[in-house]
Amino acid sequence: MVDKVDKAVVLLSGGLDSATVLAIARNEGYWTYALSFDYGQRHRIELEAARRVAHAGGAAEHRILDLPIGKLGGSALTDDAIDVPKNSEFEHAVIPVTYVPARNTVFLSMALAMAETYGARDIFIGANAVDYSGYPDCRPEFISAFENLANLATREGVEGEGFRIRAPLIDMSKADIINTGVKLGVDYSLTVSCYNPSTDGLACGECDSCRLRADGFNRADVADPTVYRPVR
Amino acid sequence: MVDKVDKAVVLLSGGLDSATVLAIARNEGYWTYALSFDYGQRHRIELEAARRVAHAGGAAEHRILDLPIGKLGGSALTDDAIDVPKNSEFEHAVIPVTYVPARNTVFLSMALAMAETYGARDIFIGANAVDYSGYPDCRPEFISAFENLANLATREGVEGEGFRIRAPLIDMSKADIINTGVKLGVDYSLTVSCYNPSTDGLACGECDSCRLRADGFNRADVADPTVYRPVR
Repeated sequence: MVDKVDKAVVLLSGGLDSATVLAIARNEGYWTYALSFDYGQRHRIELEAARRVAHAGGAAEHRILDLPIGKLGGSALTDDAIDVPKNSEFEHAVIPVTYVPARNTVFLSMALAMAETYGARDIFIGANAVDYSGYPDCRPEFISAFENLANLATREGVEGEGFRIRAPLIDMSKADIINTGVKLGVDYSLTVSCYNPSTDGLACGECDSCRLRADGFNRADVADPTVYRPVR
Repeated sequence: MVDKVDKAVVLLSGGLDSATVLAIARNEGYWTYALSFDYGQRHRIELEAARRVAHAGGAAEHRILDLPIGKLGGSALTDDAIDVPKNSEFEHAVIPVTYVPARNTVFLSMALAMAETYGARDIFIGANAVDYSGYPDCRPEFISAFENLANLATREGVEGEGFRIRAPLIDMSKADIINTGVKLGVDYSLTVSCYNPSTDGLACGECDSCRLRADGFNRADVADPTVYRPVR
């Protein structure tokens, strides 16, 4: 008897959201192939977090691919000439300086190439339109447009059953995401969300990402496992 | 008086088609930013050709970015375990083994990131649906779907005038392409089309790409400047 189990590619940043997505994909029964990128991000400590999360989360494989998008510049996350904002107002109608041009398009394109090569038909991404409504490539219409593209762009799309782009967090609040992950056994102490962590991985507690994360644990009524660095 | 001239990103492989596209973009008045990829292709000599073509073609800049898609395997162009076919029948309804999973999706995504960073709104690609009808990502519907995606995925698409994906060769025969390029002064002796060239850049004369190219010069009634290696 052949026990066919489907494969999925899971984009894994090492942060809270994608760790939850990995757990959701595993919980649905997929063999999960985690994919992370070294793209010149300032917060490269997240790649070590991604390794820990992939292993703890039961991924079948974890690949880290180099991507030169940081060399193009244009974002506070990859360009030393642009400061990461601290304690900024959350302005959901405005695209933040931490926006990386076309990042999720590039990430999903690479995930699509991996999925087609590996024989996976599902691609999971931790895009979230609630906390990151300022990023155009975190919206549901972006996800739908990419799925449409994927099925025109590939052999699998044209000759096979096609690809699905899965964004299970897209409408969830940070607290909902944390509650979902806790139920699925995610160890959030392994994850790094900070945009500007110290070299030993301690969170700044001041950037947008740290504040969203802390607020999420607070609202979810879950103890925050994040280790913050001492305030100067 | 400010003389505003638009910028365009031009995907440049070093082959005949993209050299023609660069000339078309320049002829339309764009400042052209050429983009090539080192993706583990067997025919890496084409990157040297891309340098020559970009310079001779008047590009404002030429960038070569590393892309790890070859590491994923799955194509005769990047995987030494798969032979490049010789003297195969052209079967236009079949996707060839030289298909690289999601290649044009990845290339256009990177071009989109570069365009947004550089302030270019037009992206030129040498996709052609006539000679390469077997590749799903060379069809007009793929180009349209990517343009739609680009304008949902980016700051420029949401807040600005948006991007155009230009595929001026999409419906042209190889002879038409060559005639267009000759009129625009393209020096095709600088280009390399062969999938399997020798280390000194001599064309095999046997792969699909060599045969399409030779047939194109023949039908265009233009002397073929390609240097072929001696037959064993």
